[in-house]
Amino acid sequence: RSIEKKSLSDSEVIFRQLFEKESSTYTYLLGCAETRECLLIDPVLETVERDLRVVDELGLKLKLCVNTHCHADHITGSGEIKKMRKEVKSVISKRAGAMADVLIDEGDVVQVGTSVKLKCLATPGHTDGCVSFVLGDNTDVFTGDALLIRGCGRTDFQGGSSETLFDGVTGKLFGGLPDTCKVWPAHDYKGRMVSTIGEEKRLNPRLGAGKTKEEFVQIMKDLNLPYPKKIDASLPRNLKCGAEE
Amino acid sequence: RSIEKKSLSDSEVIFRQLFEKESSTYTYLLGCAETRECLLIDPVLETVERDLRVVDELGLKLKLCVNTHCHADHITGSGEIKKMRKEVKSVISKRAGAMADVLIDEGDVVQVGTSVKLKCLATPGHTDGCVSFVLGDNTDVFTGDALLIRGCGRTDFQGGSSETLFDGVTGKLFGGLPDTCKVWPAHDYKGRMVSTIGEEKRLNPRLGAGKTKEEFVQIMKDLNLPYPKKIDASLPRNLKCGAEE
Ligand SMILES: [Fe+2]
Ligand SMILES: [Fe+2]
Repeated sequence: RSIEKKSLSDSEVIFRQLFEKESSTYTYLLGCAETRECLLIDPVLETVERDLRVVDELGLKLKLCVNTHCHADHITGSGEIKKMRKEVKSVISKRAGAMADVLIDEGDVVQVGTSVKLKCLATPGHTDGCVSFVLGDNTDVFTGDALLIRGCGRTDFQGGSSETLFDGVTGKLFGGLPDTCKVWPAHDYKGRMVSTIGEEKRLNPRLGAGKTKEEFVQIMKDLNLPYPKKIDASLPRNLKCGAEE
Repeated sequence: RSIEKKSLSDSEVIFRQLFEKESSTYTYLLGCAETRECLLIDPVLETVERDLRVVDELGLKLKLCVNTHCHADHITGSGEIKKMRKEVKSVISKRAGAMADVLIDEGDVVQVGTSVKLKCLATPGHTDGCVSFVLGDNTDVFTGDALLIRGCGRTDFQGGSSETLFDGVTGKLFGGLPDTCKVWPAHDYKGRMVSTIGEEKRLNPRLGAGKTKEEFVQIMKDLNLPYPKKIDASLPRNLKCGAEE
């Protein structure tokens, strides 16, 4: 069977979604059932111990910590994990302006083992360096803060741009992925865990449901969000892959 | 294809796991893609509005609210949902001693549409009336508080019995389901969402990993848990399907 047919419901891909309560962040574990190699998407400092335990209990070997962007709401677990597991490499978009072992860009493929292949799509606008990762044959996409369930990341700092976010999400995600493609976001604040491209096209009150770019820009302008609580502590550390100051 | 082959990764079964933060409860939505009928397992009062929105947004028609047992840690959403949606029926084990429209017992099948068929296994011991629900061809099991990820429900009140819990979990779940069967618990307090029968047999520190019944009984005795905070408010209401006193 072609490697392009791999999906999260294949038994060749080991998959776990994990939740960190404080920042309502989802961390994703993807592993190759054949080679037992795995990666983590968006690990959080507070849950490093839990995540590594899950990796070990499933008999997996962690190779990569991948961040969808330079987070402002929590400190990445990548730096702490790299300290504990010397063989682990960190991955982030070159446009994030952050330190990492591997810098990626549009079209690059992040791979572990034979079955886990994540294609990088640049979806900036929440931050300059936001990327989404598409698994195998477009069955699943990890959208970071670009596209959330019935929402999206804020666009008012970190080089954010509502226009850019709209173009990326509607063009590359809504336009480039099938309606059945599962959407795995970096956060949800209401206990929802997954959506689909079709659902978000139809129901996302900001980016879907027929909203124009102009309407989206106005919606984001009207949010008037407070300055993010953890940004001053998180950003400097995340720019150094979670290393302490 | 035989109806017995249905699983959560089939596109004929619509599936969502939902989380309620206060009590760390998982609510499960299972729907039939063909008839659009659906059911909820263990809805929580606080998240009724969210759950019904998900049901509606997915174009589903809610038929049943199913409780795995009479909860002591949260008030079921079943009563509130029945008030808002007159066509919805509540389901609970006849051994729970609680009010519901449909009382079920070992071996009964709870069905909505053509693809969602849940076989009821009595797994008492956390409470007298605890049941687990096995989907289709043993691909997924909803274990309530009988079997949690690396844990289990307490056995020190509500007719609890460590011996009975051990027999049910090791006999019917570990003994009767394949290692690949996914375990969807009623709670997790560490942000984990799913396990498998194989994992719990191998790793559950109370019920798996070679523990004997005697060791399990001692482990549960030694927990010395405090009186549950919400039991006095939750139990009387849950015995009446969530109705207000
Ligand atoms: Fe972010
Ligand atoms: Fe319980």
